[in-house]
Amino acid sequence: MSLKQIACNKSFGGLQKVFSHESSSLKCTMKFALYLPPEAESRKVPVIYWLSGLECTEQNFMTKAGAQQHAAVNNFILVIPDTSPRGCNIPGEDESYDFGTGAGFYVDATQDPWKTNYNMYSYITQELPFLINSEFPADPERQSIMGHSMGGHGALICYLKNPGKYRSVSAFSPICNPTQGPWGKKALKGYLGSDEESWKDYDATCLVAKYDGPPIDILIDQGTDDKFLEKELLPDNFVAACKEAQVPVVLQKREGYDHSYFYIATFIGEHFKHHAKYLNA
Amino acid sequence: MSLKQIACNKSFGGLQKVFSHESSSLKCTMKFALYLPPEAESRKVPVIYWLSGLECTEQNFMTKAGAQQHAAVNNFILVIPDTSPRGCNIPGEDESYDFGTGAGFYVDATQDPWKTNYNMYSYITQELPFLINSEFPADPERQSIMGHSMGGHGALICYLKNPGKYRSVSAFSPICNPTQGPWGKKALKGYLGSDEESWKDYDATCLVAKYDGPPIDILIDQGTDDKFLEKELLPDNFVAACKEAQVPVVLQKREGYDHSYFYIATFIGEHFKHHAKYLNA
Repeated sequence: MSLKQIACNKSFGGLQKVFSHESSSLKCTMKFALYLPPEAESRKVPVIYWLSGLECTEQNFMTKAGAQQHAAVNNFILVIPDTSPRGCNIPGEDESYDFGTGAGFYVDATQDPWKTNYNMYSYITQELPFLINSEFPADPERQSIMGHSMGGHGALICYLKNPGKYRSVSAFSPICNPTQGPWGKKALKGYLGSDEESWKDYDATCLVAKYDGPPIDILIDQGTDDKFLEKELLPDNFVAACKEAQVPVVLQKREGYDHSYFYIATFIGEHFKHHAKYLNA
Repeated sequence: MSLKQIACNKSFGGLQKVFSHESSSLKCTMKFALYLPPEAESRKVPVIYWLSGLECTEQNFMTKAGAQQHAAVNNFILVIPDTSPRGCNIPGEDESYDFGTGAGFYVDATQDPWKTNYNMYSYITQELPFLINSEFPADPERQSIMGHSMGGHGALICYLKNPGKYRSVSAFSPICNPTQGPWGKKALKGYLGSDEESWKDYDATCLVAKYDGPPIDILIDQGTDDKFLEKELLPDNFVAACKEAQVPVVLQKREGYDHSYFYIATFIGEHFKHHAKYLNA
């Protein structure tokens, strides 16, 4: 459980840090970035977990999204984990951008050779929050989750599978229905095997249909010029499933925006306002 | 003069683009980033040039500073050039981080083998503005300049050597007195030769002492935990020279901040306000 601080930079009155630690669920050394807002020096504050997309590390959101200004104003801790185990020496782990390293897909793998290390779902929902709540001034009763693309999928499934654990959820261009897109099918088959029923446990569109928890208010953000929209992301399938299940959802479409961090940076402030409604309530 | 668009992403209602072109002053292919704010679609708008520091390309400021939100609100075009010629096949150009590639130091070299390509001063003050004013809706009467570290030095010398050309200047952690620090001495000797008198033409502290132009109002921003402060940057020397020459300067010290883009992002909004006073006057 020992944390090693790798970097620390003052940012918007708070501290942007990077840590490494030995993960018990992933059986490797993991890094995560963490922003401590100014008031975290004197009291426990809410936490937002950000899950990144394919090929990202803890660096991308930390350096490109401009989120610290909003975390500082709202006094939220930001936790930015890596997107997969690293350096596990599994044959094939570095062969493609959409499977293995950088592409953990936020599932707990059941298949060899992945199941020893590729347990990102447990890491994100169990190990990491336990670590954060133990080591930092985080209010364990006030946590929310958000993400982008593969990480938007991750945020949605973590939220839907754990009613009440997170106060709110939002996602930029999430993979909403991975059982129906090429990225999702490849990852779910690789990590979970060929029984497609098992894939549905990690598909937000399937999960929302059987959601049975406190009232929720899901925010999906989507650029209209996103080249992955129609083949990989499928937000309309998710919205239809929400309507069928009578779960409130807002699909915010952004005219002319793409899949990049330039798009995320433009609207990240609105997402912090969404989370603040619940985290500060 | 033909521009090739390499990238285009919508950002804060405007467009963040990257271009390449054949530079006549540098005799190589150069890239620059350019942000077009929303109103540039319908009228000519002011321009801010950003000069980056050692090892940077056109990418760093574009992705890490969070400047687009401020350029959008103020309707400023942002121009972000690269920091040196690239790929000139000069022996030794890639040997060190502080000389050659990524370290043009915004001078016009007089020494072989650098003088054919390493003319960043002419590129920044002549060729690039001509190109920008020809190809984009830029108001040539309303331009300002800013930068960081080596680029802060660049912004100061371009401003001081061309009275009236730029409406305002600001610099984050600039190399204020390069004739007195190791980075500056190495670069000036390499590009300009061993006659130290010639170095003073590119030293802001020397230049301000003989400044003879319209009234000016220089903004210097400096983190107190910047590890390069005492050996390389020397802002106190510049402030003393400004006082001696009765040139108004503000040295804004930032407690606990370092030399990074996390620091720049924190205060970039204040710098845009400084420039807006002059660009919108």
